[in-house]
Amino acid sequence: MSERKIALLSDRFKTLWYEYGTVKILNRKTYPFSTEYVTCRTVEEVAVAIEKMIIQGAPPIAYAAGLALAMEAHLNHNKPQTEMCTILQSAASRLRRTRPTGWDLSFTIDCCLEIAAQALKTGENVEEAIRVYVYEVIEDGNQVARATGRHAADIVPDGARIQTMCFAGAALNYMLYYAVEDGKDIRVYASETRPYLQGARLTAQSAIEMDIPVTVVTDNMPGFLMYRHITNMLVTAADKITSDGYVANKIGTYQCALAAQDNDIPFYVLGYKGPAPNAKTVDTIVIEERDPEEVLYCLGVRTAAQGAQGFYPAFDITPPRLITAIVTDRGIFPPNLIWRYSEMKPEK
Amino acid sequence: MSERKIALLSDRFKTLWYEYGTVKILNRKTYPFSTEYVTCRTVEEVAVAIEKMIIQGAPPIAYAAGLALAMEAHLNHNKPQTEMCTILQSAASRLRRTRPTGWDLSFTIDCCLEIAAQALKTGENVEEAIRVYVYEVIEDGNQVARATGRHAADIVPDGARIQTMCFAGAALNYMLYYAVEDGKDIRVYASETRPYLQGARLTAQSAIEMDIPVTVVTDNMPGFLMYRHITNMLVTAADKITSDGYVANKIGTYQCALAAQDNDIPFYVLGYKGPAPNAKTVDTIVIEERDPEEVLYCLGVRTAAQGAQGFYPAFDITPPRLITAIVTDRGIFPPNLIWRYSEMKPEK
Repeated sequence: MSERKIALLSDRFKTLWYEYGTVKILNRKTYPFSTEYVTCRTVEEVAVAIEKMIIQGAPPIAYAAGLALAMEAHLNHNKPQTEMCTILQSAASRLRRTRPTGWDLSFTIDCCLEIAAQALKTGENVEEAIRVYVYEVIEDGNQVARATGRHAADIVPDGARIQTMCFAGAALNYMLYYAVEDGKDIRVYASETRPYLQGARLTAQSAIEMDIPVTVVTDNMPGFLMYRHITNMLVTAADKITSDGYVANKIGTYQCALAAQDNDIPFYVLGYKGPAPNAKTVDTIVIEERDPEEVLYCLGVRTAAQGAQGFYPAFDITPPRLITAIVTDRGIFPPNLIWRYSEMKPEK
Repeated sequence: MSERKIALLSDRFKTLWYEYGTVKILNRKTYPFSTEYVTCRTVEEVAVAIEKMIIQGAPPIAYAAGLALAMEAHLNHNKPQTEMCTILQSAASRLRRTRPTGWDLSFTIDCCLEIAAQALKTGENVEEAIRVYVYEVIEDGNQVARATGRHAADIVPDGARIQTMCFAGAALNYMLYYAVEDGKDIRVYASETRPYLQGARLTAQSAIEMDIPVTVVTDNMPGFLMYRHITNMLVTAADKITSDGYVANKIGTYQCALAAQDNDIPFYVLGYKGPAPNAKTVDTIVIEERDPEEVLYCLGVRTAAQGAQGFYPAFDITPPRLITAIVTDRGIFPPNLIWRYSEMKPEK
């Protein structure tokens, strides 16, 4: 990396780490208006931090859950082996319930339980075994994000006006970073992403930290921006990709994808590690419904008439026919061929 | 009308009137959180009220501008005839500049100037001539809204789950009113419509006042609601319809229309008095751009990262291929045949 700055949210170790039997988490709900770190001392506190979106994004919440299991092992290090097993399984089950749509979460939790079982068998320190494993996963995740961003930067044209929805995570930051490194003139148009404003806060802030010009628009605007070709490229992340090429991502992605197709604008999904293991078809996607009240407020201020109900599906599903390509750490795939991801060797 | 209540925003005389040389306007920016009336004593005050969206909707802003001209005639009733003409033309020009997209505004202003010229010629009271004319226009507007709503109610199916964008005005209220009168089970899904929240406030409140269940969602959600057929009908108003069947309406309409088409859901435009006079093609549509800062805030609270720019096109354009039908006071038209509106006789 050169002298050019990369945004804070690009390196997951700067936003999440394990410290003396606690899990430290950058509060993404208030960032960038304040930069505060939450200290979680119990599994329940991490679970609530995930539920309340103190931490967000499919990979980061998986890392936090993994570190919560290390913490649970630490808190119970004197317990007999069978009891420890039960405790960890109970913690795992609490953490799995926090957010149902992304696949990284339950996958990482499963792996941590296996690591723990192995450590218990060999008499290793369970806390340390899980922590080391999760740190490896985070390090791998950082590499995956960087590789994905590098591949994506290659297909960002000079003059790109990039429409985003939500915050597409570290891979987006690396994509923007490398595109500018490559001498391309780019601008981000971030859809604000109500009700949590990940676009207006996290995407916009990441661009600003990297000196990349960014325009924030409301979530009813991306369609018109593409209609007028004010934006000429749509980029989002994916909370879950299925082997048949469907993408679950932050709600709003589908209607942006429709507008992209209607105006011959390419839609690239930053797909990180590709399809979820064992998720062969779109039917495996579970759409999380969050507290309906949340859509009736913005940053704590009531926005809707009293007496109105709310409804808050957190994700939507985009079919492969609306996706130009899925960009992963192992290269770029047409959505219908994303099942080939597992055949590709990781790049070194 | 039976005992069933009709919402406040259905009768324009309850939200706007002329009183002792002033124009009284319900503040739609704060309604329904407070019900306050603004008193405008100069043309400039009315112009600013229109610009700041104290009053909104293509017909209501036209009525307010008309009454502002009556007020200007009142304030200058001692002036000689030629000076009065110049004063009114200058006022008209200020009022015309407030909002460029809707057609009612400039049309009503033109008519008021003609009425004034006629009154000056015959020695009538100019203030009273304009006021009487504008009140007739408002009364006609009320009838148009009611007739449009009646026609629309006929095609609302039992079990309708009606997706809206922005506030489709009095015709929407009458549509909902009559649908319920006809014994239909309906629910409104109002897209909140950032940054001004016309959907979360005005549409939701109107439904609530009529005891019609309403769910508010954020502007990134309508696509998914249609994808899942949680909503099965899309209804919006139109700020301007051109004779070739294009519709300019609140930004967000176009991407909702795409989702409706992609999921075989009908999209009905409440078209009130049909195409704008002399607007033959889509090229006559001017999309208003409002202060970019407005999209970076919600109800006065900063929502976007410092350093981000804003962009605020207030309307978008939906092509006829995405519109099922345009509902007017004179009946229901396929969008490509909306030019036939002028051939139809007004219904009595």
